[in-house]
Amino acid sequence: MALFEEEMDTSPMVSSLLSSLANYSNLTQGSKEHEEAENNEEARKKTVQAPRMGTIMGVYLPCMQNILGVILFLRMTWLVGVGGILGTFIIVFMCCSTTMLTAISMSAIATNGVVPAGGSYYMISRSLGPEFGGAVGICFYLGTTFAGAMYILGCIEILLIYIVPAAAIFKMEGLEGAEAEAALLNNMRVYGTIVLSFMALVVFVGVKYVNKLALVFLACVILSILAVYAGVIKTSFDPPFFPVCVLGNRTLVSKGFDICAKTIEQGNATVTTKLWRAFCDSEFLNATCDEYFTSNNVSQIQGIPGITSGILAENLFTTFMEKSSILEKRGIPAVLDPEATVANTNRYVLADITSFFTLLVGIYFPSVTGIMAGSNRSGDLQDAQKSIPVGTILAITTTSIIYMSSVFLFGACVDGVVLRDKFGEGVNGNLVIGTLAWPSPWVIVFGSFFSTCGAGLQSLTGAPRLLQAIARDGIIPFLRVFGHGKTNGEPTWALLLTACICEIGILIASLDAVAPILSMFFLMCYMFVNLACALQTLLRTPNWRPRFKFYHWALSLLGMSLCLTLMFLCSWYYAIVAMVIASCIYKYIEFCGAEKEWGDGIRGISLSAARYALMRLEEGPPHTKNWRPQILVLMSLDGEQSVEQPRLLSLTSQLKAGKGLTIVGACVEGTYLNNQPQAQKADQSLRKLMEVEKVKGFSQVVISSNLRDATSHLIQAGGLGGLRHNTVLVSFPKNWKQAEEHHRCRNFIEVVRETTAAHLALLVPKNISAYPSNGERFTEGHIDVWWIVHDGGLLMLLPFLLLQHKVWRKCKIRIFTVAQMDDNSIQMKKDLMTFLYHLRFDAEVEVVEMHDSDISAYTYEKTLVMEQRSQILKEMHLTKNEREREIQSITDVSRGSIRRKNPSNLHPQRSIAEESVYVMYFSIFVIIHLNLTLTKKYFAIFGVLYRNQSNVRRMHHAQKLNGVIVKKSQEAKLVLLNMPGPPKNRTGEENYMEFLEVLTEGLNRVLLVRGGGREVITIYS
Amino acid sequence: MALFEEEMDTSPMVSSLLSSLANYSNLTQGSKEHEEAENNEEARKKTVQAPRMGTIMGVYLPCMQNILGVILFLRMTWLVGVGGILGTFIIVFMCCSTTMLTAISMSAIATNGVVPAGGSYYMISRSLGPEFGGAVGICFYLGTTFAGAMYILGCIEILLIYIVPAAAIFKMEGLEGAEAEAALLNNMRVYGTIVLSFMALVVFVGVKYVNKLALVFLACVILSILAVYAGVIKTSFDPPFFPVCVLGNRTLVSKGFDICAKTIEQGNATVTTKLWRAFCDSEFLNATCDEYFTSNNVSQIQGIPGITSGILAENLFTTFMEKSSILEKRGIPAVLDPEATVANTNRYVLADITSFFTLLVGIYFPSVTGIMAGSNRSGDLQDAQKSIPVGTILAITTTSIIYMSSVFLFGACVDGVVLRDKFGEGVNGNLVIGTLAWPSPWVIVFGSFFSTCGAGLQSLTGAPRLLQAIARDGIIPFLRVFGHGKTNGEPTWALLLTACICEIGILIASLDAVAPILSMFFLMCYMFVNLACALQTLLRTPNWRPRFKFYHWALSLLGMSLCLTLMFLCSWYYAIVAMVIASCIYKYIEFCGAEKEWGDGIRGISLSAARYALMRLEEGPPHTKNWRPQILVLMSLDGEQSVEQPRLLSLTSQLKAGKGLTIVGACVEGTYLNNQPQAQKADQSLRKLMEVEKVKGFSQVVISSNLRDATSHLIQAGGLGGLRHNTVLVSFPKNWKQAEEHHRCRNFIEVVRETTAAHLALLVPKNISAYPSNGERFTEGHIDVWWIVHDGGLLMLLPFLLLQHKVWRKCKIRIFTVAQMDDNSIQMKKDLMTFLYHLRFDAEVEVVEMHDSDISAYTYEKTLVMEQRSQILKEMHLTKNEREREIQSITDVSRGSIRRKNPSNLHPQRSIAEESVYVMYFSIFVIIHLNLTLTKKYFAIFGVLYRNQSNVRRMHHAQKLNGVIVKKSQEAKLVLLNMPGPPKNRTGEENYMEFLEVLTEGLNRVLLVRGGGREVITIYS
Repeated sequence: MALFEEEMDTSPMVSSLLSSLANYSNLTQGSKEHEEAENNEEARKKTVQAPRMGTIMGVYLPCMQNILGVILFLRMTWLVGVGGILGTFIIVFMCCSTTMLTAISMSAIATNGVVPAGGSYYMISRSLGPEFGGAVGICFYLGTTFAGAMYILGCIEILLIYIVPAAAIFKMEGLEGAEAEAALLNNMRVYGTIVLSFMALVVFVGVKYVNKLALVFLACVILSILAVYAGVIKTSFDPPFFPVCVLGNRTLVSKGFDICAKTIEQGNATVTTKLWRAFCDSEFLNATCDEYFTSNNVSQIQGIPGITSGILAENLFTTFMEKSSILEKRGIPAVLDPEATVANTNRYVLADITSFFTLLVGIYFPSVTGIMAGSNRSGDLQDAQKSIPVGTILAITTTSIIYMSSVFLFGACVDGVVLRDKFGEGVNGNLVIGTLAWPSPWVIVFGSFFSTCGAGLQSLTGAPRLLQAIARDGIIPFLRVFGHGKTNGEPTWALLLTACICEIGILIASLDAVAPILSMFFLMCYMFVNLACALQTLLRTPNWRPRFKFYHWALSLLGMSLCLTLMFLCSWYYAIVAMVIASCIYKYIEFCGAEKEWGDGIRGISLSAARYALMRLEEGPPHTKNWRPQILVLMSLDGEQSVEQPRLLSLTSQLKAGKGLTIVGACVEGTYLNNQPQAQKADQSLRKLMEVEKVKGFSQVVISSNLRDATSHLIQAGGLGGLRHNTVLVSFPKNWKQAEEHHRCRNFIEVVRETTAAHLALLVPKNISAYPSNGERFTEGHIDVWWIVHDGGLLMLLPFLLLQHKVWRKCKIRIFTVAQMDDNSIQMKKDLMTFLYHLRFDAEVEVVEMHDSDISAYTYEKTLVMEQRSQILKEMHLTKNEREREIQSITDVSRGSIRRKNPSNLHPQRSIAEESVYVMYFSIFVIIHLNLTLTKKYFAIFGVLYRNQSNVRRMHHAQKLNGVIVKKSQEAKLVLLNMPGPPKNRTGEENYMEFLEVLTEGLNRVLLVRGGGREVITIYS
Repeated sequence: MALFEEEMDTSPMVSSLLSSLANYSNLTQGSKEHEEAENNEEARKKTVQAPRMGTIMGVYLPCMQNILGVILFLRMTWLVGVGGILGTFIIVFMCCSTTMLTAISMSAIATNGVVPAGGSYYMISRSLGPEFGGAVGICFYLGTTFAGAMYILGCIEILLIYIVPAAAIFKMEGLEGAEAEAALLNNMRVYGTIVLSFMALVVFVGVKYVNKLALVFLACVILSILAVYAGVIKTSFDPPFFPVCVLGNRTLVSKGFDICAKTIEQGNATVTTKLWRAFCDSEFLNATCDEYFTSNNVSQIQGIPGITSGILAENLFTTFMEKSSILEKRGIPAVLDPEATVANTNRYVLADITSFFTLLVGIYFPSVTGIMAGSNRSGDLQDAQKSIPVGTILAITTTSIIYMSSVFLFGACVDGVVLRDKFGEGVNGNLVIGTLAWPSPWVIVFGSFFSTCGAGLQSLTGAPRLLQAIARDGIIPFLRVFGHGKTNGEPTWALLLTACICEIGILIASLDAVAPILSMFFLMCYMFVNLACALQTLLRTPNWRPRFKFYHWALSLLGMSLCLTLMFLCSWYYAIVAMVIASCIYKYIEFCGAEKEWGDGIRGISLSAARYALMRLEEGPPHTKNWRPQILVLMSLDGEQSVEQPRLLSLTSQLKAGKGLTIVGACVEGTYLNNQPQAQKADQSLRKLMEVEKVKGFSQVVISSNLRDATSHLIQAGGLGGLRHNTVLVSFPKNWKQAEEHHRCRNFIEVVRETTAAHLALLVPKNISAYPSNGERFTEGHIDVWWIVHDGGLLMLLPFLLLQHKVWRKCKIRIFTVAQMDDNSIQMKKDLMTFLYHLRFDAEVEVVEMHDSDISAYTYEKTLVMEQRSQILKEMHLTKNEREREIQSITDVSRGSIRRKNPSNLHPQRSIAEESVYVMYFSIFVIIHLNLTLTKKYFAIFGVLYRNQSNVRRMHHAQKLNGVIVKKSQEAKLVLLNMPGPPKNRTGEENYMEFLEVLTEGLNRVLLVRGGGREVITIYS
């Protein structure tokens, strides 16, 4: 491949790349992480050789097992009873939609490239960046941990209420209301802690067995569900016999009596039942009884009327209950004295909590979590990119169908009274869902017991691993300790922390209270998954190419808003707490400055934002009201590419231009190919200086074959779109009189010309090295503004900007202006003060009168010296080196074009005239040096005769003005002055420099200011 | 001023500027609006000559009059009664703080320059821009209009309830509960409409009289307040006698009985009173009476116990009431059968609405509005900048003191039962605040009546004017009709609309329902004032220099959040509605594209945002995951400065680079001073083309003395900060073989070199004019990628990007790669497919075997022709024009430096060798043309003997590769191909072009791609 041999040393041939890919060793990939992953190749290869799992075993079944769980068995019937079929269906539908949409987003993320073995946390952190990733990871971890607590609580609930109620440590018998509740909770706490310790021990000792038992647990769940379906079918022809005893319309606790009647005929005598004794003060028929007992009949109703009974219609709508209200059967008339207080409340089935719609949402949601179980196993999958979407979505579909069907089936088979009876107190303490099951309620009881045990174990296994993964990423420094583990890699410390957090959940003790907490954390996590997918789709990064095609940003956004809605529906304060936790973690990670080479998918946001903001700006120049200096600082570099006048940047930073745009530009002579190192060095020294001087902005170093072009380029093309400079800051050329600095001087004048042409403002500090550094503080003194020409008002604005900086804060502003012969200086001062008042500037005002006077001999002399020197310079140019000539030739060309445009400049004649004048001046110059006073008159005559008066007049004016300024502002800390424009034709260039020199003579710090041809201050609001 | 004579034509001398300022005629100000204002000079001068107002008359009193009003008289007592002193104080304090903070923000805005005569709407719209200004203006207008409705309702409430209850059209006597309420509301509606029509007529006929009466109305208010204070003082020694009759602890409506007792001793007999008859079925002592009446005593309590009575303690806390609950006196024991239903409800004083804290906020807030009254008069003020802050803040302080003191005084003087009695039903139908007044309640009744009338009139005067101002601004097109007015400028249509909207408020009929509505609108308006101030302070625009110094962004932000809090406190749904209305208006104005030259103060936001976003981006290059092409398109221009290859931009837009950054660059030769017009023309044609081709990006035209430098500049310095290009798109030079295009060809090769040096990717479309336009649609066909060298993967990414565009959507991607002798092509294909699978690219894969073969004679011939031509070219360069020579000299210099670096290139020897080879080749060339087949062998020998083999091998490879490509991809819609690198030394430059030409021969569209030396695709997620 001779043609591409230049590339061979940097880029591999495709064939060699491919062969390197095939044995996973040398993929050119910038990320450290991946390199590390490759270093762990041996470790991974083992896994690779282990039989990898397919969709069903690897994703579908684990997802199923994680999704179906405790809530289905312990709360689903109650949810249907309280929320009604419709209400519960809405909840189930919402929650299932949320997980389905999240699964779609997750599938897109999971199929966008090789998924690392770490599962969903890695997936999210790698696509959202360390900050979001860490926050979401912690949320996911907390969710899983609290899920563990929930499973343990559920497990104990089954144990204590349905299997061995006798095992309760705190006896609930005979206690009423709050006390019974407290006893139950305490039982939960004690047993919960015991179970948690035991489970943690199991996880610590042998995590392998836990994973192996997973399928057994799943089998339990599926068996239980099948039993329920079988039971439902059975109810259609042979409903099971679960009678509920009601007094009037109040459901009675079945414990404590055997026969559902007030009296029975025993032999011939009417004997009172246990029930009678519970409500009356004696067992005799004439006993005093509870008023309600007396006035209402006892009746027995069928608890499971069966699917054909039409009970569905009765269960259709919601029946929310206050805490401790009595479960009442609808449709049975009861005699009730509304004033009588309810007695014997422990005989009735009472609502244990106040129920309302949003509570139901919070309690239900945990039963749809677990959708990430598949993606968590990405490392063990044969084809993760195919299995994860298919398996997860199938699992969600299956479980959604199970949930939705059970809502209808429960509502259609079971009486509302039984449904709302959370702990089955009215049906002999049976698990309500168990009553429906065939062949026996015990199938469900044990099935659910084992499944909750298993789920609890799995949570305790999974959560520490997740924490370990987060800790090992190192994005959250204080978690680092949890990254360590036993020698076999088991995360001991993480397990301990998990157990501790889990214990918090167990101390809460109520399943109904823990459920919303974990709902929050899972919802946060799901929300971010959706967000990640939506953002990446909308930002259209080229590397966002998921294999899974059926995603859409609208779906993800819908999923996200559903998550948010559910969060606030469940409980707005938990939602806020969860968000605060997440944002604290986010900020903490940001603060710690995690610099992971992950490349967050949302970094594109900043790019898009910057682009969008720039696009918006391009609409046009800002209004005068919004004008702010956006400075291009032209720095000159010495031979070592370091900055010659660092004080230029001090001045920039003192102008507070940091609030506007600042571009610091510098030029390097040469070509890009050869002088790149110099340019980089220059850029580095610029950046370093900018950091020192606290100038926030951008640096641009341009390499060009000549200084003039490079400078011109910076002025032309600095900035981008709307972010362009409107002001150029360049220092006055030092030693411009020296011949070797001549090209710099020329460049300076060209800069002045170009800024004028480009309508840019120009700031020229003279004697820049005398300017104060950012550390100095002037404790007094003045900033003097000499306002001679109004070219936009920049002159007035600058001292105001300077005053905002610490260096100049204590200075006072004085504004001087010059009144000429025909001006009324008193009126001028008054007008000026009004103007300044309207401009909201605080400044002293002074009007200096400057009357025309005779042109002094000194002026003539100065003019002469000046003109002579520029002539000498001109001659010298002929001996300059090649580079200089080049510039000359260019400028000659341009000059030529000007001349062509101005045919009035008759060049040949002029040059002859100049020649002769030169000769004459030179002779006069000699005479003057011999005897100055004597030749004054002659000189004047000669000057008037042979020269254009212009130079003399200018020199005269410059000198006069300088005199006034020096007189008034000698002591000023800074003098701001209008900068005169350069001569239109190029012949007067050297003279121009001389004028500027004369104008600023004797002043320490002068800032020459030229407006950009537009107003920058306004008196209007 | 000879020195500044260049400036004289563009910028005025200060003295002339000042004199022009003094007579307000020629201020250089960009804004049209101000010019218009100046055109209306005559109109204004009249006003100027009219006596202008000072702080007291112009700001303080109008503000006072607007702030104090109907709520103080009609609801304040009730608020204190229901909310308690503490609760009400909190409300008053919050509301007053809000207005105070808003006033501070407003003062800052008002003193930032000359305030136009239009008042607060102008102020806000000019500082926030037309969108916000319009939205806020409409909110302010709606607020003022609803305030009008509220005043009218208040006025009628006073009239119907306190002055002439007999005037009611729908009689309320004898009606109970809902019916009485409905009757009252209907009365309000009928009378309200009548009053509104009357007031509208008054405003229509004579607005002058309204303004003149303002002071009279204010006098009424102040008199009333003084009367209250006087009354309070009087209570301390002689509390007025306003007894309240209570039955048990229930307050009785005083109407309908005269004596507060069940029976009285008349003569010796005990006679029943009217009260008895109201509660019993007959007037006899043995009559059957209301149970409550029988079991409780009737007693009379002092309604105004006076300030010394210590009633304050009793009124300290809140006493919220349900609607229709009975007003009960605290601390009086009453016998009550809790089961008995309440009878005779119309005898008791009932709560007319359910009260709760947030309702009170909504009802109270309107009494602190009106703080803009001063700034609305800015046009009539002598010194607006001084008067507005001082007057407004003073007025707010005064009124705040009045409100806060009255909260305490009412609470300390009046019994809670009376306070909560909204309509004074328990105190003979007196206005409750009136009972406190001295000398007579009627002072207050009439005072408040007139003040509400006046305030209503003023609202109806002000609102249409505001609407007219908004309409005249023309930012909301559909409002334009309301800008017209009568010949005298009175806004007739606007008045009509205002009256209609006002009527809506009146139809609501309840003061308590209208108050929160207008609160919303005013709060929105205040919020934006605070926002404007906070933003401008934080953005630090140089032109934000308010004369009023006591503002701070934190105060404004606090004010803003207070406004927001109050809005949501009052009523979250009204708040949302108000916000929706405001944002609809905002979007509408934005949609209509109001291009006002106002310069919104918040435009700085976009600038700051752009700068901030750019700064963030500068942190470093993005991760591979986020890589997206940011293209610099180098366009070439023809002599007319129009674009030579517009299809380059079509291709750019097809690459969807719009989602990344696009910079379209072009070069103009010359100097900035002379060639600016050409550059502008070029820029325009670029922009126009970009618009046509839908390329969103930035254009940059650079003028430089030579093409090479200009191109180099664009490559070096295009973009800013983090927004830099990473890919250069340049078309393959057409006709590069022609001598006159030689410099372009050289430039092209330098571009290739520079992009490589700068680590930029390079895209070179050949035959660009054959590329499809954006309008074309390929319905089938292939995009063929010839992947020979892996230099980052851009080659693979590009077809994926192209496929996202409509033009290419239906094409299929084929990836070809070349297997050489020692490659296993079957394994390669397999690996490649896996790789593509991981990369998530869908493409056909083909591995083409290319075995080495003998170098054909044709290759030698081609090589010969090539080398010969480049030799001829070299000679021709000597005769090129001056410009060419210039470039040559530069490149010579650079070349020189290269040679110095590579001393191995022994130039002198080489050139001799080349000479001889040239001669030999030339002879062979002649022979070939005579008889080609015969001389093959000779040629080969010659070539091998005399030439470096490199060129031959390259040519051989290029030809072979080309053969394969043409065979496979002849029909492809586009062929993507790795671009070989340029030769390291410059001697082979012409040959390089020839190689490229050979490589791409016979293909219609070829896109040569060179990676930028970094990975742009990754298989990792």
